[in-house]
Amino acid sequence: MTDKPAPKPDTRFRRLKEKGSRDFQLACSIVDEARIGHVGFADEGQPYVVPMAVARDQHQLLLHGSVASRLMQQLASGLPCCVTITHLDGLVLARSAFNSSMHYRSLMVFGRASPVTDPDEKARCLEVLTDHLLPGRREELRASTPQEINATQVLAIPLEVFTVKISEGPPDDPARDLGAGIWAGVVPLRTVAGEPIRDPELDSAIPLPDYLGEL
Amino acid sequence: MTDKPAPKPDTRFRRLKEKGSRDFQLACSIVDEARIGHVGFADEGQPYVVPMAVARDQHQLLLHGSVASRLMQQLASGLPCCVTITHLDGLVLARSAFNSSMHYRSLMVFGRASPVTDPDEKARCLEVLTDHLLPGRREELRASTPQEINATQVLAIPLEVFTVKISEGPPDDPARDLGAGIWAGVVPLRTVAGEPIRDPELDSAIPLPDYLGEL
Repeated sequence: MTDKPAPKPDTRFRRLKEKGSRDFQLACSIVDEARIGHVGFADEGQPYVVPMAVARDQHQLLLHGSVASRLMQQLASGLPCCVTITHLDGLVLARSAFNSSMHYRSLMVFGRASPVTDPDEKARCLEVLTDHLLPGRREELRASTPQEINATQVLAIPLEVFTVKISEGPPDDPARDLGAGIWAGVVPLRTVAGEPIRDPELDSAIPLPDYLGEL
Repeated sequence: MTDKPAPKPDTRFRRLKEKGSRDFQLACSIVDEARIGHVGFADEGQPYVVPMAVARDQHQLLLHGSVASRLMQQLASGLPCCVTITHLDGLVLARSAFNSSMHYRSLMVFGRASPVTDPDEKARCLEVLTDHLLPGRREELRASTPQEINATQVLAIPLEVFTVKISEGPPDDPARDLGAGIWAGVVPLRTVAGEPIRDPELDSAIPLPDYLGEL
């Protein structure tokens, strides 16, 4: 368990308490395995939930987007937001529909986004994002230009107030259902990379890089 | 294009307009391929984004959960919510970090959830959910009991006000970058089912059902 103070918002999810944990390392592992999160905020009571690329830089989440994006401007204004990252790990087939469920690992981070304004720090954060989303790729890329960095908004959200929920294990059928003569268990789910598709503009002499085998 | 009126909220996402579409069939296909969505709502300005199982029943989204869940009670009260469903379809490797991106299909549905209170209709909606999440499974399961149906809250959200965003195609590098001697293209991503894991309580004589091969 982390020694962070108990976050205020998560007490609302009392029914899921049995799946709760505030373990910081677990939260980090959920971010580090993710490519996107769902970013929620409200504008005059209307909620919006937007998928965005995510990465972790030590004790903060990083988001990025165009400086011209209204979404990025809204988030940068510091309104309360919630970033939720979910890995759907499996389908749990119990002997009844009622007890069937899913395996997942989910992280909800509550906070406010701050724009990263220092150009060097912004460039560093963008490198963290690139290294997370495309490991091994950055060494091959040309350096980002100052114009590109200026055109990009980077936002940081502290990984401090959060809730982790994990669902795992075999089906939890009541004893009276165990005799049902049907298969029960878990079907694991995972995300896999398929065969890379070359850009039609790509010189045919350029081979597939080794790091794509790690995706 | 659907003939639904243009939704008010989506005009906020002007930067993504080039990826926008209100095509109802496309929205349906995004729901029908999904197992979970991210449900956002705000309580006194604090946004929450919660992963939940989703299914589609004609022109509405279905959610379900425990009647004792505070989350379900909050949603059932009819506050504005946003359900976002995202399929991350690939990584786009451009010649620069700036132009690298992702392939995705994303649906944002704006509306208010209504509880399905009629017992027969609730039972039918739960069947729709089960058939969606575990195709072929329901025929084998015992029928849900009235107690189980009473203990379950089903919520419906109209699939009427929504935004679809699609990102696809090869990298979009400027001409000056095309000569960079590095690989460029797309790495497709998809979710796959692994080898089913039998419940330790399961009679060893019970074979794996055929429908699991379809997941």
